[in-house]
Amino acid sequence: MSARRFPEMDRREISQAVIRRLPRYLRYVNMLLAGGVERVSSGGLAEGLGLTASQIRQDLNCFGGFGQQGYGYSTEKLSASISAILGIELGYRAVLIGVGNLGRALLGKFSFGRSGLTIIGAFDIVPELSDVGGVRVYTLDKLSAFLTEHAPEAAVLTLPADKALDMAVRLRDGGVRAIWNFTSTDLQGLGLVVEDVLLSDSLMTLCYRLSQRQPHG
Amino acid sequence: MSARRFPEMDRREISQAVIRRLPRYLRYVNMLLAGGVERVSSGGLAEGLGLTASQIRQDLNCFGGFGQQGYGYSTEKLSASISAILGIELGYRAVLIGVGNLGRALLGKFSFGRSGLTIIGAFDIVPELSDVGGVRVYTLDKLSAFLTEHAPEAAVLTLPADKALDMAVRLRDGGVRAIWNFTSTDLQGLGLVVEDVLLSDSLMTLCYRLSQRQPHG
Repeated sequence: MSARRFPEMDRREISQAVIRRLPRYLRYVNMLLAGGVERVSSGGLAEGLGLTASQIRQDLNCFGGFGQQGYGYSTEKLSASISAILGIELGYRAVLIGVGNLGRALLGKFSFGRSGLTIIGAFDIVPELSDVGGVRVYTLDKLSAFLTEHAPEAAVLTLPADKALDMAVRLRDGGVRAIWNFTSTDLQGLGLVVEDVLLSDSLMTLCYRLSQRQPHG
Repeated sequence: MSARRFPEMDRREISQAVIRRLPRYLRYVNMLLAGGVERVSSGGLAEGLGLTASQIRQDLNCFGGFGQQGYGYSTEKLSASISAILGIELGYRAVLIGVGNLGRALLGKFSFGRSGLTIIGAFDIVPELSDVGGVRVYTLDKLSAFLTEHAPEAAVLTLPADKALDMAVRLRDGGVRAIWNFTSTDLQGLGLVVEDVLLSDSLMTLCYRLSQRQPHG
């Protein structure tokens, strides 16, 4: 059992904490932009985000800073810069493996593009004639050839948990470098970037807060 | 725009950070338990979780501590205690609103019970004859009577984003106190405990890590 099992808590914790705040900054700044707000001070960001102004400046300074003293931040530049930092504009391509209900929900409803990913193909063991959410669904026996031809950087795993490890190895051997993992199977240790979606952790936190009766609103 | 918009970053940040680590402790301890491990030292927990032993002791001391100096923690007691802290054993009941692909995926595949919640009914605008994952699906016109009769503490929102705010108000007025929110609609400010599942933040983090080529495994 190595210290890598829970990478979100390892020695890179500080910078990872900043990284994990950036999507929230981006959501907030894009909301301001959508509302026609052209400039925002660190104090304004602080109020909107529930952080201190010095924390905001410190976070944004980690990436070189964007503001001018006494003049604030351009919301448009800030949005573009955070998007660039997050790699959203790099246009990564991914396959989705497992077109069950969760896979269908993601293909049909989730805006992958806004987060920097394009799904270029979906795969399932069950033959599927129609596309889902505009994405072509292939049978799994076509996967290896597809990886060779299109070389996607990432994969979304929405297949049954007991198939996840074998599939991750197969994807890695086919050139995939990152996995968005919905299976709650431990995929660390394979040399892949793995981002786990741990719904049970989120639900446990909800139950805890309910037991404490801490309404936040 | 109040400081409450992003409550996970407000002045309760420290204790919230501990709370958010507890599900990971629990997953790890339950894995040890399943493997027949009866006792674990703070050093052992530290190695498995990628934290320092002093951080572990500090976290667990927030809740009164469980270990004995030089003797370690009983995995069984630790599991039971963390479950109790998280409120998992309180047996909260919830309704699920929106039986589309995501709602079906959750009802069919997700172990609500392990995280402390029982889904006692699901609702959708589309009439549905069959149950999903053993849960009865009702049409939405039955919701108010159901809330009055069964008084569930929580709701899972998997309906379209533009219906989420109205539904949250309706649920609150019907006695629901907590929302597990998959809609990416802002539901703060209603006096409810809201736990957002922000998939786009997770995916952005993945893309960032891919752009930095930081394999964790």
